[in-house]
Parts: sequence; structure tokens; C-alpha cells
Amino acid sequence: MAEARGAINTFFDPKTIAVVGVSSTEEEGPGRIIFKNLSSGFPGKVYAVNPRAAQIEGARCYPSVGEIPGPVDLCVIATPAAVVPQILEDCGRKGTRNAIIVSGGFGEVGNTDLEARLEEASVKHGIRIIGPNCLGIYDSHSKINAFFLPSYRIRVPKPGNVAFISQSGAVAGGGLDWAAAENIGISKIVSYGNKLDVGECEMLEYLERDDRTKVIMVYLEGLKDGRRFVRIARRVSRKKPIIVLKVGNTSRGAAAVKSHTGSLAGDSKVYAGAFAQAGIVQARTLEELFDFAKAFSLQQPGAGPRVQVITSGGGFGVMGTDAIEENALVMAEMGEERRAALRAQLPAHCVIVNPLDVTGDSDAERYKLATDAAIDDPAVDAILLIFLFQLPKLSTEVVKIMALADRRTDKPIVAVAIGSEFTHLHRVTMEAEGIPVYDTPERAVRAMKALVDAGRLRAAP
Amino acid sequence: MAEARGAINTFFDPKTIAVVGVSSTEEEGPGRIIFKNLSSGFPGKVYAVNPRAAQIEGARCYPSVGEIPGPVDLCVIATPAAVVPQILEDCGRKGTRNAIIVSGGFGEVGNTDLEARLEEASVKHGIRIIGPNCLGIYDSHSKINAFFLPSYRIRVPKPGNVAFISQSGAVAGGGLDWAAAENIGISKIVSYGNKLDVGECEMLEYLERDDRTKVIMVYLEGLKDGRRFVRIARRVSRKKPIIVLKVGNTSRGAAAVKSHTGSLAGDSKVYAGAFAQAGIVQARTLEELFDFAKAFSLQQPGAGPRVQVITSGGGFGVMGTDAIEENALVMAEMGEERRAALRAQLPAHCVIVNPLDVTGDSDAERYKLATDAAIDDPAVDAILLIFLFQLPKLSTEVVKIMALADRRTDKPIVAVAIGSEFTHLHRVTMEAEGIPVYDTPERAVRAMKALVDAGRLRAAP
Repeated sequence: MAEARGAINTFFDPKTIAVVGVSSTEEEGPGRIIFKNLSSGFPGKVYAVNPRAAQIEGARCYPSVGEIPGPVDLCVIATPAAVVPQILEDCGRKGTRNAIIVSGGFGEVGNTDLEARLEEASVKHGIRIIGPNCLGIYDSHSKINAFFLPSYRIRVPKPGNVAFISQSGAVAGGGLDWAAAENIGISKIVSYGNKLDVGECEMLEYLERDDRTKVIMVYLEGLKDGRRFVRIARRVSRKKPIIVLKVGNTSRGAAAVKSHTGSLAGDSKVYAGAFAQAGIVQARTLEELFDFAKAFSLQQPGAGPRVQVITSGGGFGVMGTDAIEENALVMAEMGEERRAALRAQLPAHCVIVNPLDVTGDSDAERYKLATDAAIDDPAVDAILLIFLFQLPKLSTEVVKIMALADRRTDKPIVAVAIGSEFTHLHRVTMEAEGIPVYDTPERAVRAMKALVDAGRLRAAP
Repeated sequence: MAEARGAINTFFDPKTIAVVGVSSTEEEGPGRIIFKNLSSGFPGKVYAVNPRAAQIEGARCYPSVGEIPGPVDLCVIATPAAVVPQILEDCGRKGTRNAIIVSGGFGEVGNTDLEARLEEASVKHGIRIIGPNCLGIYDSHSKINAFFLPSYRIRVPKPGNVAFISQSGAVAGGGLDWAAAENIGISKIVSYGNKLDVGECEMLEYLERDDRTKVIMVYLEGLKDGRRFVRIARRVSRKKPIIVLKVGNTSRGAAAVKSHTGSLAGDSKVYAGAFAQAGIVQARTLEELFDFAKAFSLQQPGAGPRVQVITSGGGFGVMGTDAIEENALVMAEMGEERRAALRAQLPAHCVIVNPLDVTGDSDAERYKLATDAAIDDPAVDAILLIFLFQLPKLSTEVVKIMALADRRTDKPIVAVAIGSEFTHLHRVTMEAEGIPVYDTPERAVRAMKALVDAGRLRAAP
């Protein structure tokens, strides 16, 4: 009789972790790197397993999972493929119900028999499996970094509410590091490789209930059971935005998908239709995937398409305007009375149309007046703020003022600020206050469009 | 009789500069900031002019340009509009033949009479004028920073071969700072405002002869004399790539252009046709403008569309493949013999197709073998390299190895490396060696497409 199955939850919240395949000779081997990463961050107990070593990295080494004293909640396996079934048996006897199999050499290279033996052991002992042939998991809250990427090569992103599930290990690992550069707060990242057990569907269901996750990013090459995915996604997306980057949309891209994960990429139009049905926001590029995630992480879906642009640089206002029209959003028209009031409050050389140009000598107060008017005007659904932090009179104070404005409205506010260090500092503080900031007007407007689309999808019956 | 006209050259290579309108009271005023910026960087003599102060910033202040001892090659004017004609008269008498007029309050706000008086003085004395209503100029070689943006708010980009001419001051100033963040080497940046005298055409003609400029970026809202621009651009683009971001392509964008610089944005299709005729590469977004400039700055136009992708991450390879097909480039097919040779040299788990996947345990040597094969194969026109610097075995050495490979070929090589600090360090060193690097496959492929398009435009009769 099969034993009771482990919980997905335990992957992300174990008390004890064993790493099997911690090499004593190969410092840059996956098991060794994982053990190092876990040892330096994870607050629980981490055990190294290697039958041919007594000590590694100054820690005691166990010959097998079975010989570890006390329970092992999660086992991370990074051994050669051939011995993995035996290790799962050890886990089963030990009572370990969660295993991440980093090792490759299974179905993806044609060893389907060996992969079938993993499945047998999984069913027999009720062991939940992530992998095989995957990068593993990262969790900012429980401080699990089970990626086999050396810590000196990666900056860890700030903890946050964005989860990322990825069919590609490289995209998961590169994404972890890039999320840090892009200042995106991450809850967890999962690379599930051959998805013998846990795949997109299981992760969506888990993330639906995960209090630390507000937004779900998905990198997808192909689905085994598209109907199930759509059914689950449709439910989850009503609570948490799901943003998907589906690749393999061209014939050569589909061929590349086949040789990468063995998935069938399928018809991109069919996918697009299914995604729309499921309330999923589709990103067309990796940049959009991360840009949209940042927007949903900090803002809420929009109620309508009418955008007011507020800028201190005319050129950037024009770019924003073009982008709004090209993305099928609408330039808002504030009421004449409100514009007359603004004309009385702002200097004569400010241009009170849309884009509203507070001009190059603007201070924070002008942004406040313009933003307050846009928030209060019923003809405005969303606000695009463009800052030039290079300008001498735009004080740091503007960040706090905009944060207060944002807090009193449900209208999405998205910002643009192009530059280097000084600008970056202000972007980070502005994002800490809840307003997402992008390099260019075009990127910001596409993120705004995603917020507006999600609002429409959510309002749909 | 009109006097001999000054040379455009002198704007960028003066020995002495006077700044008129250096306020003693307003520290954040344009003249004061320009004086400070020039004083701290420009190796020649800089004079402050203000009739109501004896000393500013510890330097002697002159009541007028005329009272400065010795010649003044360039005058930067940042006074109220009304007194500018008089200052030009002073310049004329003094023999100064180059003036940058930062001051606004002329044609752009309807004061066409006042602007006409500037033109009179310009013609009478042969004074070349940049402006009025502009941000001014930046030159990395002669170390002129006459932008009225405080230095603590901006990081100056590395000196390089990219010139940027911008109809928007904000885009010029933000662009200076962003070029630093994007690691783009800049020769000079010009914001020409109302283009009373110097505009795009004059700048193109000057940059055609400027040895320090290899690539020309243009931000454009509208042209007064489109035929002349196309005629000049057609000639210049045969020697130096010209990349144009033309905005105001939508009806609301065109309206925003009208209220920003008073230009007629015109029909975007007519512009696109004229640009193609002129051998101009058109960028669709601000990001593309800078991305393309980086590509042309470091690489050469391509001879054909067939791209070989080399990656250590399968997912990124798929994204690159999709982007190649979507941008009407072609996935290259290396000869079978060469692929057989690679199969013998690379480990069995490497995937020797296109994308060529050297896989996650790749070292620098695998990249060398794959890149050398692509360089030597006549069926490959261009190479897209994708690096995951998060991977444990990919040593810093790969930068040098790729640089050597790049040096022995005319095929464009463009790279992708996503990540934060560690990756960024490798990107900067790789770009110092001549290979442009981008965050995402999609951005890199669009830059590659620009190189290929430029090669085709140049080959056209």
C-alpha cells in the first residue's frame, strides 16, 4: 500500500534538509555548492551526505540519509543519475517525504526507464518530487537557496511578493540575479525540470494559498495537460495575477523547445486564446515578464484605459503619448474646470494638457498639484509619472509626496526615471513606497497596459 | 556687410568660454550650474559674467563679455530672454563667433520677434548659434559639460565614439546619464532647442567629419527641411551609421510634439520611407536607440541574416531563436562536417544544433570551440552569444577568449548576459573588448537585426 504523500508546503518550509552528493573533491560541483548555500543561509539544520567522506566544509558527513540522526524533512539530491532511485528508497525508509532531484540524465536524455523507477519510488513512499534535471528552489522567507549557483556570482533580490516558476533552470537562476538588479521583491523561485511530479499546475495550486505570494510569474515552454492548467489558472488568476512568458512561438523556436525540455511548444495562437480565457497576462519578452511582475507586485489592476501623463521633460512626454496610443490605451482628458484650477496654481510656462508638462524647472510641489488633480478627476483611470532626477530643483521629497498621493487612490500609478546612480537611488526608494519605476516611457506604458488588461480580464464574467 | 561666420567646430573645441547669467543668488540657476560644471572639468579658461556681482564661486565676475581680457571663443548665455540680443551684440563686438543660448522665452512661447532679433545679430556678426531654449552641449574629449544639470545628479559616461543629437533637452540630459548606466561611450551630445541656426543638418555635416564620432544617434520630433536632411543623411550614413528615434507617430503623439517643440511631426510612414532611402536605421523605442548605438559603436554592419546562437542555458536559447525568427533574421545551419567535428570535441550532453547548447556545466573552452566553428563556417553570417555568469564553471577568462575570436572575424558578434553585479562586471569588460552585451535575448537580437539591416542598406546601390 502506498504511504501518505508529502505536502508541497514542506519544500518551502522544512526544518531539516539533507544534501546528497556533496562532493569532497569537486568544489564547484552542484551538491557542494547547494550545501554551501544552504549552510550559510538556512536557519534550520543542514546535513551533508557522502559515503566516501567524513567531513566536508568543516561539517560532518553522513554515509546515507538513513544514518542522519533525527528527521529529515527535505532531501536535495545531486548525485549521478544511476543512484537516485536507491536514495529515494533511503528517503522512503527514513520518512522523508520531499525530494528535489537536481541530477540530470533521465527522460531528457532518453533514460525513461530510470525516470520510471523514480516515479515508482515516489508513489510507493509518497515522496513529492521536484525535478529531476532541475535547478531546484529558492525561498526568500525560509532562506532556502538550493540553487547550485555560487553565491559570489549572484546578488539575492529583496524578499517580496513575486513568485517565479520556470521550466528552465537557467532562466530561474538568471532570473534570481536579475530580480535583484531590477529591484523586484521575490517570495520564491522554482525550477522543476522534467516535472516528474510537481509542475506548473501543482505550483499554481500551492501559490494560490501561499500568503507570501501576491504575483505569479511563469516561464513556459510547453504544457502536458493544457486543460488542467487553464482550469487552475482561471481560478488562481482571480486572486493573484499570473504573468506568463510562453516561448517556442516560431517554428524554429518550437524545435529549440523540443531539443531543450522535450516539450511540444504547440500553436502560439491556441496558447494566447487559452491564456486570455484563464485570465493570464501574457508577456512577449523576458523584459516584459519582469516589468509586468514589478507592476503587479506594487500596484493593482486598473479600472479603465484613460491615462494622464505628467512629465518634466517634453520629449519623454511625447514618447509616453506614442506608447499609450500604440498600446491601445487612451490619453485622458481632464475636465476643463480642473485644468483651469491647475493653470491658476502652476507657473504660466507649464503646459496643462495631456501630457501635462511641469517643465524642467519643476519642483516636487508641481508634481503634487498635477498628480492630485489627476487622482481627483473622474476622467482619469491611471497615471504615468515621468521624473527627470537630473533636474536641479526636483528634490528627493517628491518620492514621499508621490507615495502619499498613491496611497489615497486605487488608480494605477506607474513611473519613469531614466539615469544612473542618483536616479537609481530615487527609484529604489520610490519602489519601496509602492510605485514601480522603469527606464523608459515605453516600458512603463507596457506595464500599465498589463495592469489595465488584468483589470478588464478580472471584470469579465 | 556681414562678418565671416564662426565654425561649428568651435562649439566643441574652444580655448576660452564665457558664461553669461551666472547668478550670485540662485545656486540652482542654469548659468550658475553651467559655470560650476565647466569650471570643474574644462581645462581652458572659463569666465563668469554678471554685472551685479564681483565674485561668484570664488572666481572673478565680469560685468560683460566685452570686459573679459583676451579672446572668448564660446559664449554660453543663460540670462532672461529680453537681454539676449544685447549680449549677442557684445559677443559680436568682442569677436566671439559661437554662442549657446540656453535661455527660453522665444519662438517656443510665441516671442517670434525676439527670436528674429537673435537671428539678425547672428547674421550681422557671423555668430553661430546653438539654441535658444536648449540644454546645450556635452563633449567628452574637450571636457565641456555645458548642460545645466548638477554634477552630483549625473554620472558621466565613458568617452567613446557615439554622438547624440537631440531635439529634446530632457532626452539629451537623461540620455547622458543613461549612457553611463548602459556603458555606452559618448563623444558628444547636443541639444539644439529652437534650432535658430544649428539643427540636425548642421550637426550631421559636422559629425561626418568628426574623427571622434563613429555612430550618430538622433532624437527627432520633426524636421523643417526633410529633403535636405535626407540628402545629407544619405551621404553621411555611408560612412557612419545614423540611428533615429522619430517620435510623434500617433495622432496624440503628434499633438504632443506640436505643444513641445512646435514641430510638425508629419506622417510616420513618409518618415520611415525617407529614412530607409537615407540609409538611416530607425529605432522604435528609446531603449532600441541606445541598444542599437551600442551595437554600432562596438561592431560593424553585418553581411547577411544567418545567425548562429551559442548558449549555456536552453531557455535563453529558445528566446533567442524566437526573437531571430520574429525579427526576420534566419537561424544559420552550420555544415554537417563541422558539426561532427564539434560533436567529437564537446561532451556528449552538449546539443550541437542551432541554438548550440554548451549546457550549464560549460567552461570557457566550450564557448571557444563553438564560436570558432561559427566564425569559420561560411553558412554563418553573425553570432549571438548567451552567457550565464551565474554558472560555477564559466570563468572570467571567457571574456578574453571571446575578444580574441571577435578580432579575427568581420561577422557581427552580439552577446546576452542577464544578472546583477558579477554579471555586470563581466559585461563591462566584454564591452571594453568590443562585444556589446544586453540583458535579454530579445534586446540583443533586435540590435543584431539593426546591424544586419545597416549592412543591407549600405550594400544597396
